[in-house]
Amino acid sequence: MKTKKLINAGADAVDEMLQGVLAAHPDHLYAVEGMPRAVIARNGPRKGKVGLVIGGGSGHEPTFLGYVGKGLADAAAIGNVFASPPPDPIMACAKAVDGGVGVLFMYGNYAGDVMNFDMAAEMLALDEIKVRTVLTTDDVASAPSDQREKRRGVAGNVFIFKAAGAACDLLYSLDEVERVARHANARTYTMGVALSPCSLPQTLKPNFLIGDGEMEIGMGIHGEPGTAREPLKSADAVTDELMDNILREMKADRGERVAVLVNSLGSTPMMELYIMMRRVKARLDAAGLIIHTSLVGNYCTSLEMAGASVTLMHLDDELRRLIDHPCDCAMFRR
Amino acid sequence: MKTKKLINAGADAVDEMLQGVLAAHPDHLYAVEGMPRAVIARNGPRKGKVGLVIGGGSGHEPTFLGYVGKGLADAAAIGNVFASPPPDPIMACAKAVDGGVGVLFMYGNYAGDVMNFDMAAEMLALDEIKVRTVLTTDDVASAPSDQREKRRGVAGNVFIFKAAGAACDLLYSLDEVERVARHANARTYTMGVALSPCSLPQTLKPNFLIGDGEMEIGMGIHGEPGTAREPLKSADAVTDELMDNILREMKADRGERVAVLVNSLGSTPMMELYIMMRRVKARLDAAGLIIHTSLVGNYCTSLEMAGASVTLMHLDDELRRLIDHPCDCAMFRR
Repeated sequence: MKTKKLINAGADAVDEMLQGVLAAHPDHLYAVEGMPRAVIARNGPRKGKVGLVIGGGSGHEPTFLGYVGKGLADAAAIGNVFASPPPDPIMACAKAVDGGVGVLFMYGNYAGDVMNFDMAAEMLALDEIKVRTVLTTDDVASAPSDQREKRRGVAGNVFIFKAAGAACDLLYSLDEVERVARHANARTYTMGVALSPCSLPQTLKPNFLIGDGEMEIGMGIHGEPGTAREPLKSADAVTDELMDNILREMKADRGERVAVLVNSLGSTPMMELYIMMRRVKARLDAAGLIIHTSLVGNYCTSLEMAGASVTLMHLDDELRRLIDHPCDCAMFRR
Repeated sequence: MKTKKLINAGADAVDEMLQGVLAAHPDHLYAVEGMPRAVIARNGPRKGKVGLVIGGGSGHEPTFLGYVGKGLADAAAIGNVFASPPPDPIMACAKAVDGGVGVLFMYGNYAGDVMNFDMAAEMLALDEIKVRTVLTTDDVASAPSDQREKRRGVAGNVFIFKAAGAACDLLYSLDEVERVARHANARTYTMGVALSPCSLPQTLKPNFLIGDGEMEIGMGIHGEPGTAREPLKSADAVTDELMDNILREMKADRGERVAVLVNSLGSTPMMELYIMMRRVKARLDAAGLIIHTSLVGNYCTSLEMAGASVTLMHLDDELRRLIDHPCDCAMFRR
């Protein structure tokens, strides 16, 4: 059985999506001339400001396009579905947003992205554009805590990009933006659960198999294997399992503040996300932690995968200011 | 096979969702004491302002809760999944938001909602709270154009509530708010397509059956039968079918402006919505119509149903001003 999708030719899906994005949000976004996979913020880049370039594979919308705008990322390089962009659109993004004081690349820690962004950075060095890179590694299920550098970047991207984008908007130096980005990443923890697969537009076939009554804890946003395949539990029990892992690592003191994201992987509706949010709040209350801000909805998806993730960013005074800093993107605003 | 959901007991889903909503958005929303299904905007209601009360069944999130806030609705009365709220929370909403100059009830045209909101209005009259009612009837597939009053209200709610909420915020009189609401409804057109069903938390069984390669054009947001069951077509062909029906009725002149909403019914991802948006833009360009503003995403859902709807609001100077008026809701902002 093929998955039903509202698409035209599967191979055209990403480019047609991008045309739709520009049709819907012309005041916020434009593509570099002749390079449709390099999408730039109309009101972000400026002289003297570090340019923030994010990007990665498609299929996670509103990640990455939704986080391009004033006060957040300046540009996104867009790959095929679940595949890194090649160096060309990455370079085009960097050139379009370079304000003369350097560019920061931020993206999830995946081998293909690392290879392509690094190639772009090397070539940009020849043009005397200074590039630094910070990988996001918020997925606690993807490697042990003493191997944080091996972890994947997932929904926590939203808060990590937000903090770095605010630092850029406040005209921090490239050194300082890089420090903030690493600090934000180090204090952000995500864990997810998948209930059903998604399928790529080109194949229309499920990207993994899972039983009718099963869930997979810790599965990645491209269907990377998780830490346990289990019978589906109640929302409270699932949320507890995610929160146990996150809180064990986060080591926050009573009275401290967190930013919370309860994220749908695609087809899990808001009703279920808010039921999980209720339990997140109960667990945070019990730990004496304060919800400074919260997001609930589709923020980092895997096409139509069913499932959800919980992200906590452990705030300090600096991150709190950066998270509260205004931003204005086509699909996200504070 | 049962649908997998991240819930606890099915019967608790709506109340637990509401607890999660209040946990996530305490700065925007609160529930009336002892009446958790009456959700009120913290910064909306005030003396001398018409109170706007919306509501209906759950399962369409962010409709209705997402449209409660300053500049939009003042309160939402929340029913069980796909079922009208009873009169009690509706009355509690009206009393909480009454600014002494009357209350407007706005909701989709469904028999259960009409009965319960009308009962509430009658009882409120005894308390000398003046209530007017405007039903939304934007679903062009649900009755012929000469029987507009028989049509259902669907995703166009977003724009219609927005216009009425702006009129309330601008301190229009009850007569004027009612006029604006009827005018906004009369100029709003939605049509949808369903690809797969959803299931209620209590049953976990699909609410309709549809073949692997089929779609249903014009299906309602509770699975009400549509106008045609057809083999699934390309995104462009489906969008054309929706746009043909909408444009035939809208009768706009070249150079006029529209507000566009491409809405997911739940599990259809943003990639597909933007592919549809691309075609909507092509059709509007061909008709000489200007996209004044656009929304693309999950705005009026049917739990995890797959499918999408297209809404056009045919703007005039008055509606344009009201749509552009600022609003600040927990799940929606302009």
